Amino acid sequence: MSTPAPPTSERRPAVVLLSGGLDSTTCLALARQQGFEPVALSFRYGQRHTVELDCARQVAEAAGVEHLVADIDLAAFGGSALVDDALEVPKHDDVAELAAEAAGDEIPITYVPARNTIFLSFAVAVAEVRGAADIFIGVNAVDYSGYPDCRPEFVAAFEEMANLATRAGVEGNRLTIHTPLISLTKAEIVQLGVGLGVDYSVTSTCYDPGPDGGACGRCDACLLRAKGFADAGVPDPTRYTAA
Amino acid sequence: MSTPAPPTSERRPAVVLLSGGLDSTTCLALARQQGFEPVALSFRYGQRHTVELDCARQVAEAAGVEHLVADIDLAAFGGSALVDDALEVPKHDDVAELAAEAAGDEIPITYVPARNTIFLSFAVAVAEVRGAADIFIGVNAVDYSGYPDCRPEFVAAFEEMANLATRAGVEGNRLTIHTPLISLTKAEIVQLGVGLGVDYSVTSTCYDPGPDGGACGRCDACLLRAKGFADAGVPDPTRYTAA
Repeated sequence: MSTPAPPTSERRPAVVLLSGGLDSTTCLALARQQGFEPVALSFRYGQRHTVELDCARQVAEAAGVEHLVADIDLAAFGGSALVDDALEVPKHDDVAELAAEAAGDEIPITYVPARNTIFLSFAVAVAEVRGAADIFIGVNAVDYSGYPDCRPEFVAAFEEMANLATRAGVEGNRLTIHTPLISLTKAEIVQLGVGLGVDYSVTSTCYDPGPDGGACGRCDACLLRAKGFADAGVPDPTRYTAA
Repeated sequence: MSTPAPPTSERRPAVVLLSGGLDSTTCLALARQQGFEPVALSFRYGQRHTVELDCARQVAEAAGVEHLVADIDLAAFGGSALVDDALEVPKHDDVAELAAEAAGDEIPITYVPARNTIFLSFAVAVAEVRGAADIFIGVNAVDYSGYPDCRPEFVAAFEEMANLATRAGVEGNRLTIHTPLISLTKAEIVQLGVGLGVDYSVTSTCYDPGPDGGACGRCDACLLRAKGFADAGVPDPTRYTAA
């Protein structure tokens, strides 16, 4: 049995999926607080806007962690309002209207086919190359459970699969997919992040930012985020678009 | 209950992962023979050579099927002789030497971290957008079982995960990952393909083709392929490099 090389620090390596939004930014801060040395992983995947990648870069910089951006090509397959210009991002006047629609049990049009599956698969590749046994993803099943790939049963099945797919799994170094936010409300996530010193002003959550990069204030993500700050009793630092 | 629009043909849509090699080309022919109308899906993933993509294009054209090529960025993560210029592709003098090494239970250096996981994840996205419930992958666990993500237990776990990840799974249209070659020897695959009319002269299997695009004849993939033709009693149509 060979002795593994000691890490550059006492921290264990980890991969954190980072969109630059509120949830993944909180997740990154939490991974650091739990003693990990994270590599943040973002994707250029044919988003209609690049605001979130700019935010991810700023968030990683502020956290002092390495930031990888992988280019992938989801737009070519179409099928979601988030990557397909021909589909319109739904807007609502308030959270009550959104909640009524979400209760209809429909998968929202903003769902990107297999997105978390693809993102986690890349995270597994990075984890394997970097010798990390821990992957963090900020999925959340409470406020908005319309996406099938945000559910705990999906994450558990992914972890199982990943351990059969990889060298690490075969060699007995079990990979763990951490979802520390999965059962928190948006308000609880905000409170957690504020406690960890997260600066939410550099994060972006909006599905459809204005030309100035500001949040639209009316898409599902904006409404839930604003409600999170309100419920948490924390001033909302979001910069809304002037348009 | 709404009546689904009839397909453009009587064939059911499917996604077939196509590398342009012997196995995936046979898999494509088999999917067609089983009554599917496949979309072939290939990847530009930082391969050291593009011979296999040229072959995939020719194979898809010969089969008369639509061909998608997705750009992904595995090379940035490194970690495999197949995508990393700094690592050398292992060469052997004959199959016996290769077999002795493979029996050592080591995962070969040509293993690309999480590759099949990533490829299948993209196939799930395409399947979901195209309304296909069937994905074909030409993995094979007999001749060469060193890759963890070629094992039946990996494929079963992936299928389970995919059905929790997707709209199709949630709505009860179960996705199936077909691995028709998984328990066949290379010779049996060749015999199957010849029976289906596959022209293996346009396929490429080599891990390290020469500057003229010809096969090296000495990497693991070349040795197993040559043995497959020999064992099947079929003349080997492979074009070897002049170098």
